[in-house]
Amino acid sequence: MDLKDVKSPQDIKHCSVEELNGLATQVRETIIGQVAKHGGHLASSLGVVELTLALHYVFNAPEDKIVWDVGHQAYVHKLLTGRYDRFGTLRQQGGISGFLKRNESEYDCFGAGHATTSISAALGFAVARNQLGRNNNVVAVIGDGSMTGGMAYEALNNAGLSKQNMTIILNDNKMSIAPNVGGFSKYLNRVISDPMYNKMRSDLDRLMKRLPGVLGSRFRDLFLQAESAAKNAVKPGAFFEDLGIRYFGPIDGHDINELIMILERVKAQPGPCIVHVLTEKGRGLDAAEKNPTKFHGCGPFDPESGLPLAPGSKNPSLTSVFGKTLLELAKKDKRILGITAAMPTGCGLDIVAKELPDRVIDVGIAEEHAVTFAAGLACDGIVPVVAIYSSFMQRAYDQIMHDVALQNLHVVFVLDRAGLVGADGPTHHGAFDLSFLRTVPGMTIMAPSDENELRDMMTAAIDMKGPVAIRYPRGTALAEEMLPPAATFDAKLPKVIEQGKDILLLGAGFMTNELKKTSKILKEHGYNPTLVDARFIKPLDEECYRGLFENHKVVVTLEDNTRIGGYGSAVMELMQDLGFTDKELFRFGLPDHFVEQGDIPSLYKLLKIDGESVANQLMEKL
Amino acid sequence: MDLKDVKSPQDIKHCSVEELNGLATQVRETIIGQVAKHGGHLASSLGVVELTLALHYVFNAPEDKIVWDVGHQAYVHKLLTGRYDRFGTLRQQGGISGFLKRNESEYDCFGAGHATTSISAALGFAVARNQLGRNNNVVAVIGDGSMTGGMAYEALNNAGLSKQNMTIILNDNKMSIAPNVGGFSKYLNRVISDPMYNKMRSDLDRLMKRLPGVLGSRFRDLFLQAESAAKNAVKPGAFFEDLGIRYFGPIDGHDINELIMILERVKAQPGPCIVHVLTEKGRGLDAAEKNPTKFHGCGPFDPESGLPLAPGSKNPSLTSVFGKTLLELAKKDKRILGITAAMPTGCGLDIVAKELPDRVIDVGIAEEHAVTFAAGLACDGIVPVVAIYSSFMQRAYDQIMHDVALQNLHVVFVLDRAGLVGADGPTHHGAFDLSFLRTVPGMTIMAPSDENELRDMMTAAIDMKGPVAIRYPRGTALAEEMLPPAATFDAKLPKVIEQGKDILLLGAGFMTNELKKTSKILKEHGYNPTLVDARFIKPLDEECYRGLFENHKVVVTLEDNTRIGGYGSAVMELMQDLGFTDKELFRFGLPDHFVEQGDIPSLYKLLKIDGESVANQLMEKL
Repeated sequence: MDLKDVKSPQDIKHCSVEELNGLATQVRETIIGQVAKHGGHLASSLGVVELTLALHYVFNAPEDKIVWDVGHQAYVHKLLTGRYDRFGTLRQQGGISGFLKRNESEYDCFGAGHATTSISAALGFAVARNQLGRNNNVVAVIGDGSMTGGMAYEALNNAGLSKQNMTIILNDNKMSIAPNVGGFSKYLNRVISDPMYNKMRSDLDRLMKRLPGVLGSRFRDLFLQAESAAKNAVKPGAFFEDLGIRYFGPIDGHDINELIMILERVKAQPGPCIVHVLTEKGRGLDAAEKNPTKFHGCGPFDPESGLPLAPGSKNPSLTSVFGKTLLELAKKDKRILGITAAMPTGCGLDIVAKELPDRVIDVGIAEEHAVTFAAGLACDGIVPVVAIYSSFMQRAYDQIMHDVALQNLHVVFVLDRAGLVGADGPTHHGAFDLSFLRTVPGMTIMAPSDENELRDMMTAAIDMKGPVAIRYPRGTALAEEMLPPAATFDAKLPKVIEQGKDILLLGAGFMTNELKKTSKILKEHGYNPTLVDARFIKPLDEECYRGLFENHKVVVTLEDNTRIGGYGSAVMELMQDLGFTDKELFRFGLPDHFVEQGDIPSLYKLLKIDGESVANQLMEKL
Repeated sequence: MDLKDVKSPQDIKHCSVEELNGLATQVRETIIGQVAKHGGHLASSLGVVELTLALHYVFNAPEDKIVWDVGHQAYVHKLLTGRYDRFGTLRQQGGISGFLKRNESEYDCFGAGHATTSISAALGFAVARNQLGRNNNVVAVIGDGSMTGGMAYEALNNAGLSKQNMTIILNDNKMSIAPNVGGFSKYLNRVISDPMYNKMRSDLDRLMKRLPGVLGSRFRDLFLQAESAAKNAVKPGAFFEDLGIRYFGPIDGHDINELIMILERVKAQPGPCIVHVLTEKGRGLDAAEKNPTKFHGCGPFDPESGLPLAPGSKNPSLTSVFGKTLLELAKKDKRILGITAAMPTGCGLDIVAKELPDRVIDVGIAEEHAVTFAAGLACDGIVPVVAIYSSFMQRAYDQIMHDVALQNLHVVFVLDRAGLVGADGPTHHGAFDLSFLRTVPGMTIMAPSDENELRDMMTAAIDMKGPVAIRYPRGTALAEEMLPPAATFDAKLPKVIEQGKDILLLGAGFMTNELKKTSKILKEHGYNPTLVDARFIKPLDEECYRGLFENHKVVVTLEDNTRIGGYGSAVMELMQDLGFTDKELFRFGLPDHFVEQGDIPSLYKLLKIDGESVANQLMEKL
C-alpha cells in the first residue's frame, strides 16, 4: 500500500505485517527526505516507525487516546493521521508543527514539546474516561530519557495506586537527546541483559521431579518459596511492579509482528501496564544510527553522506561562545562546575566536558533537581553554572526561588534559547524568563547584546554574589572571531551606544541590535535618539536611569519577552518610583498570547518588534 | 544529663544510650510544652527525637552536613544545636524559624520549607566535597511523603550514578501531612512486612548440607543461583538498589541503640546508601499519635487532653468556605474533580472527600504531576479544580504554562495561602502568584475580597473557558455565615464599593479590606476617594478601567504580592497602553526581598501596607 493513500489510521487496519513493513520503509524515506531538505528532528522519529504503525494498528485513535511525550518522535504519527499532504510544511510558518498540537489534529490528543508529561496526561484521560463512563483505551509513549524526569515518577506513583486501565510504552533507545544517564538508565540496561527466569524455573522443576519421598516434599516447599523469589528477582521490570504497574518486555521495537502481539495482549489487561520496547534511534539512516545525538535535531543535509548541506553562518553560535568561554574560565577557577539537564550539546557544555570531563555534570531531564543540586554545591564553595534553555528553566521556578534565592546562594543560571526560537515554536520560545526571573528577590539578570558582552558577563558573573542569570537567544555571534573578555566590566550599568537627546531607546539584550536599525531610521527622519544597551535587566541602576530619564521626553523599550512584567515594565516601575510620570513611555515586546513557529525575522515583523516596525510605530505616535 | 546543658552536639557525644533516652524524654516535653503554648508543627518532630539524637551522636555537625527535608521535623535538631534558650521564640516575629535556615545556625546547612529538596542538596554537598578535596560526611533526612515528589527521584537517579559517599535517611512514618498515597507508599509497606531473606537462606543451607554426592553438587549450583535470586527478591529495598543505592533496613526509629549501630556502619560504607527508618509520627503524645494529621501543624492546645485551647474565631476559615462551596458545586456537576498534592485537609478538599470520596484525588507531594494530570482530565470533559498553596504552586509554573495554558484547557487553580502566611515565614508566603500567573497567556486571575466573593468566583470559574486561578489568603471569613452564591456575577468587572472623585483606591483581593480603612482615614482628612475591589487581576476590563482612570487624578493600588509585575504593574501597564500618562500612580505591595515570619497585622505595619500606613503615605505624597 502507498503511504500517500493512508488518510487515517483506519487505512492500515487491514494491512498484513508485510504491508506494514512496506509502509515503514516509505515512512522512513519520507521523513529522511523532508528533514534532509528542511531540517528538523530526525533520529527519534526514525526509531519509532514500527512502534507507531503497531500502535495505530492495534489501538483505535482518536477514540483511543495516544499521548506522546515531547513530540520529537511524532513525525510518523503525523504521516499516519492525515498529514502526509502537508508534511512538506513541517516546522514552517503557517505549516504543521514539529511537535504534537491539539488544534492541528484530533489525533494529537495532548500537545507536547517539553519532556516527561505523557504519563500524567494519560492518567488524566484514564480517570476522565472512568468518571464520565466511557470505554476507550489510553496509551502514553515515553522515552527512557524522559523517564529521568521527576514528573514521570510522580505519575507512575499515582498510576500504580489508581488501578486505571492504561498502557505505558517505554521507548528505550538508551538516549534522551544525549546518551542517557543515571541510576535508572543503568537499571534498564541490567533488565535487558538479565537471563530469563523461565529457563531457571524449568531447570528447577526438572530436578525437583527426580527427588523421592520426604526429602522431596520438604524441598518442594522450599522450592516454591525460592521459585517465587527467583521469579521476582530475575524477572525484569521489578522496579515498575514495585510501584504497582505490570511490566511486559523487553521486546524488539522494530519487529511489527511481535509489537502487535504484545500490544493486543496488553490492551486486554486490567490496570496500568508498562511495555518496555527496545528501539534504535536513527534506525534506517546510517549516519543517524552512528550519531543519533547529531541527528536528534539537525539542519538540511545530504541523505547519502549525512553531511550538512549549507555550512550556515561562519560566525560561531552563541551556544559555542558560551561553551568556549566557560572552558576558559573553568581552567582558571576550579570552583566552577557546569550542570546540564540532559542537553550537554544543546547548551554548549560538551565543549567544556571534552577537555575537563569532571567539570560538567549531566543530571538527566531533571531541571528541578539541577537547580537544587546547584544550591547544595553553592553552599559549600562551588560556583555552579546551570545551563538550561529558557523555556525549560520554567520547570525550576520554585527551586530558583526557594532553594537558591531565599538563601542568597551564588548560582549562575545560563538561559540559552531566550526569546523566540523559530521553527520549534510555542513550546520552546523563551518568552517569559525576564518576567519570572524578575520576581525573584536578589536576582541579577543580564542580557548581552553581542557575543563579547556575553563573555564579559560570564566572567563578571563568576565573581558576583547571590543568584545571577544570563540570557541570550538562539542564534549566532555578530562576528567570526570572539574578543578576549574586557579587562573591566561596569557592573550593573547600562551602556550608552549612541548619545542623542529626544528619544531614549532602551534595548534588552540582542534586541538592542534591532533598535540600532530603529535609531538609523529615526535619524533619517530628523530625530535625535539616544541608543542604550540595557545589559542589566535587574537591578536597574537608579542614578544612571534617572540621568537618562531626565534628558529625554520619550522612553522606548524593546525586548523579546512578554510585555507583561518584563524589562519594559521594570523601566516603567522605576520611572513611577522615581516620579518621572511626565514622560511618554512605549514598551515593545512579545504579545500576551503564545507565538507560533516561523523564522525569527518574519516573526519579529509579524509582531512588529523588528527595528523598522518599531521606528514606524514610534513615528506614528510622536 | 539536662537538655538545657546541651549547647552543641558535642555535648551528647559521650552520653550513654540511657542518657540519650533521658534526653529524648526531655526533648519531647520541651517540644510539647512549646507547641501547646504557642502552636507549631508538632507530630513530625515528636517522631524523630531518637533519630535526631542518634544522627548528632554519630555524625559530626557542622563539618558533617545534615540536610533536613521540609523542616517540619527540625525542632529536635534545633534543641540539640544551641537553640534551647531561644526555643520559646519559635515561629514568632524576630524569633527562631519553624524551619531550617542557614542564617540562623551553622548547623542548618541547607534551608527548607518546601518538600523533596534534601537529596538534591545533599548530593550538591557531596560533589562539592570531592571537587574541593574535603572529607566530611553528608546526610539527607527525607520523609516517605517527600519521596512521592519527583525531585527526590531525580536526585536518587543522579546519586545512584554518581557513586558519591552519602547517606539518605528515609524517615518512614507512612505519612506526609496526610496519610501517604501512591504506588511507592504501598511498596514501602510490602518491604516492611516481607520476611527476612536471612531466615530463608539459613533454611536452604541447612537442607543442602544433608544432600549427599552428585545430586548435592548439582543442587548446590542451582541453589547458588536460587539463593542469589531469593536474596534480591526477598531483600527489601530492591527499588533503591535498582537505582544504584545500597539499602539498609527497615530499622526501628525509636531504638537509639540500633540507630547508632546502623548509622556507624553506614557511615563507613562507600557510595550512596539509604537507611529505612520506621518512626511513629506524634510519638509520645497520645492525642498526636492517634491523630497525626491534626497535630501535624496546630494551634495552642491542652497537653493533657489534646484539645485546642482557644476556640479561635467563630468565623469559618477561607479554606473551609472553599471546601464547602466546592462540595455544593460538585454535587450538582459531575464533571468537577478536586485534586490535591498531599494536603487534603490544608486545602479544604477533605470536606468534599468526606461526602464524595471519588471526587477528590490526592496525587502525593507532586505539584507538577497534579497540574499536567489536570490538563489531561480537562482534555476529556472533566473540570479539574487543582487546590495547591500559592507558594507550592510555584513548582508547577511550567506545567501551567506548557500543558494547560498553551492548549487553552479549562483547569481551575485554587491558591490558598496567597499573600503573607504569618508564622511559617518566607518559605511559605505566597508573595509571587499574581506576578507569575499574570505572565501566562489566556489566564484569568481572580482574587476575592471576602468569602462570599470567593463562592461567587468559584461558581463562575466552573463555567469559564481556559485556565482560571482564584487566590485568597490564609485566614478566616469576615462573617460567621456564608451567603448562597449570587444569582449573577459580573464577569471580569471590578466592583465599585464607594464612589468618590479624587483618589482611586484599587484593592487586590482581601487587601481591599485594608483600603476600606485607608478610605475612612482619607475621608476624615477631607479627601473624597473611590474604593474599588479589583476582583479580576487578569484580564483588566479596559472600558471599565478607562472610566475609572478618567475620573480620578490619583490612582492607588494595594496588593499582598510583590510590587514587581503584580497587580499594580498591571494597572500601570494598562494606564500606559491607554495613554493615561498624566495621572499619578502609587503602587503598594510586598517589597523585593523575602519577608520574615511574624503575625500578619504586624508584618503589614512593618511593610507599610496596612490601611493606616497607606493612608499616611498617601497624605504625605499628595
